Amino acid sequence: MTKSSRRDFLASAAGTGAASFWIPKKVHGYSMAHVVDLKATRGMSKWDLDTPALVLDLDKLEQNIAKMRASLASTKVGFRPHAKTHKSADIAKLQLAAGAVGICTAKLTEAEALFDNGVQKICMTTANLSKSKIQRAMSLRKKNRDFIQAVDFAQNAQDLSDAAKAAGVTADVVIDVAVGTRSGVPADDRAIELAQMVDKLPNLKLRGMLAYDGGAQHIKGYKARHDQSLTRYEGAVKTFDRMKASGLNTEIFSGGGTGTYNIMTEVPGFTDVQVGSYVFMDAQYLEIGNEKGEIFTDFAPSLTVMTTVLNTYFPKRITTDAGAKALTLNKPDPIVIGEPGFRYNAGSDEFGSIQYDNANKTYKVGDKLELIIPHCDPVVNEYDVYYCVRNDRVEAVWPVTARGKSQ
Amino acid sequence: MTKSSRRDFLASAAGTGAASFWIPKKVHGYSMAHVVDLKATRGMSKWDLDTPALVLDLDKLEQNIAKMRASLASTKVGFRPHAKTHKSADIAKLQLAAGAVGICTAKLTEAEALFDNGVQKICMTTANLSKSKIQRAMSLRKKNRDFIQAVDFAQNAQDLSDAAKAAGVTADVVIDVAVGTRSGVPADDRAIELAQMVDKLPNLKLRGMLAYDGGAQHIKGYKARHDQSLTRYEGAVKTFDRMKASGLNTEIFSGGGTGTYNIMTEVPGFTDVQVGSYVFMDAQYLEIGNEKGEIFTDFAPSLTVMTTVLNTYFPKRITTDAGAKALTLNKPDPIVIGEPGFRYNAGSDEFGSIQYDNANKTYKVGDKLELIIPHCDPVVNEYDVYYCVRNDRVEAVWPVTARGKSQ
Repeated sequence: MTKSSRRDFLASAAGTGAASFWIPKKVHGYSMAHVVDLKATRGMSKWDLDTPALVLDLDKLEQNIAKMRASLASTKVGFRPHAKTHKSADIAKLQLAAGAVGICTAKLTEAEALFDNGVQKICMTTANLSKSKIQRAMSLRKKNRDFIQAVDFAQNAQDLSDAAKAAGVTADVVIDVAVGTRSGVPADDRAIELAQMVDKLPNLKLRGMLAYDGGAQHIKGYKARHDQSLTRYEGAVKTFDRMKASGLNTEIFSGGGTGTYNIMTEVPGFTDVQVGSYVFMDAQYLEIGNEKGEIFTDFAPSLTVMTTVLNTYFPKRITTDAGAKALTLNKPDPIVIGEPGFRYNAGSDEFGSIQYDNANKTYKVGDKLELIIPHCDPVVNEYDVYYCVRNDRVEAVWPVTARGKSQ
Repeated sequence: MTKSSRRDFLASAAGTGAASFWIPKKVHGYSMAHVVDLKATRGMSKWDLDTPALVLDLDKLEQNIAKMRASLASTKVGFRPHAKTHKSADIAKLQLAAGAVGICTAKLTEAEALFDNGVQKICMTTANLSKSKIQRAMSLRKKNRDFIQAVDFAQNAQDLSDAAKAAGVTADVVIDVAVGTRSGVPADDRAIELAQMVDKLPNLKLRGMLAYDGGAQHIKGYKARHDQSLTRYEGAVKTFDRMKASGLNTEIFSGGGTGTYNIMTEVPGFTDVQVGSYVFMDAQYLEIGNEKGEIFTDFAPSLTVMTTVLNTYFPKRITTDAGAKALTLNKPDPIVIGEPGFRYNAGSDEFGSIQYDNANKTYKVGDKLELIIPHCDPVVNEYDVYYCVRNDRVEAVWPVTARGKSQ
């Protein structure tokens, strides 16, 4: 992506064409009271919020959710959104209401927190290894018949079955098949043997397989992403075919993400994409490009951080109150909406440092700026609440239900 | 710092010579129950905790607190530890019990949270700008006569005085004088004018000045750090002298940090160092060196993150459950204690990826590793609790009182 085209896009209002097949029910009446003075906040302009504040534009959120539904409606592929991105029971419920086949979580504590807040269809994409996590997973399974967990290792399958037996349940399991070298069982005989083992273990029920390719989501350029992600996925497809040929249950064949949501539909047998970031977007995803150009405009940036100008004493510099604890250190840098010439450095824990040659206005101490965030998942994990706005006014405040749930 | 000397240090038990002038009262009986099953956790080995877990070695913490006290005891300089590092009322109380002249906070919400948990002597080092934050600061001042706040801008001084008047208080204020170009009023006539204005405003009481040099703390090599930080501080010293000569109150002249705790003592008139990281240490501070060598051994690494091995299928690679949400993206990378050949990449949100050529043992799925963290402040901000251990067993669980308090 060239800098100028990116800046042109960002200088204009960042948005996408609205999808019209399905519009989710408007979000009204959500509430939480233990962190924020709701009465004082409701109806407030996002520009008047104390900062740093995490702001979610509900129109854009709903548009993104509708767009994903519409895009996949004519295919055989469903969506099982990954809640590691939003950690929000409210958003998970909107996604389920939009037809998601379920929700994914990365961590057991995320699954517990979402279930405790009314989300039922949960697939945990990481294995539970310790005795205590396995016991808790089984106790969650006992309360929640729609809880599925991943396994990528024989001993773990045995441990899960033993714990399921002790808990008096049959636990639903998918095998996690590796794409790359990070997690999962390699896509060879070992995957088939693991699937067969799970199938035979008395207290496990094999539901199919996951294969997530984290590295594919941010390949720049649609064609490169398309070709490389399908090539990288060949091992997973072979594993799926062999499982099917062996008579194993393959009702779930899940993977992919926001970057490949319209590519994974070409994978034979594939059932659902684990899209996460599409609800929010971020500077990282804007850069990957789509079929039409260098900016990924399929979804609208709905999530921003509001920050306040703290210091303007120094020429061509502005200091703000949003640093690494508010924005993380992810690259690319935060984008200041409306100021394409601003270079934002969030490298300091407590302060943002902007350098610029040209500004569209003269900034004073106390002025607010709105930022598109570098990478949505870890930024969300820094905040307790979303300030949910419509037409820039606070309509609701949602808790980040599973914030900090990293175990 | 050469890699080998760093690795030699890390391969051995990381520690410091104990300071013996003053030993803080042992920490017993702290408790919190809303996040952790305390009964089940107490007495547990840190190696049995579910992960990722933030672990604090109380012996090392106490040793660090004692060492700072001892180092400054023979000087005219005190210490006003910065709570942005630990965000913990428990640790702030230990520091105050060790003779700290007060505690600093970066944010108003941190100050509120610490005060609500029994910490009184608080100096907020960032200005409060919005009407709502100013009102809250005054209401905090009303409850807490030991609350001091920073100001670096004339309009803000006026706003503070007006709000103090409306609240029926006289607010204690220090002017924040810039070192570098990030925050504070430039160290020239503008600083003196601001101090004079604060001095004259009816509802403000000038207490002195702050001047913090964030950039000086991590200059590598003691001599370079010593010389550069004193040179960079000359403007602040001149401002202090001019304030004093003008008859303004200069009872507070505060600044510095862990990297310059034994350098700022040479600054004439200087009253207290805002040391933060010394309680925990981290990979960033280990690298700065001290008077004796390339490793900063003045304080002991007391804070670590425990992580679990998730995947060992791939040659010369290990995947763990501690990624960017557990360790941040700060450099240098996390250090695996006892495995100097391990290169830990925390770049993925949910996973750590280790590459290695040689390991001291063969790792199995489920094994635990202990990590020295890259940079303590933002890592602490990811967790709800510290698991406090002595001889590797959990003695207490402390809340991260002001976690996520970024406003």
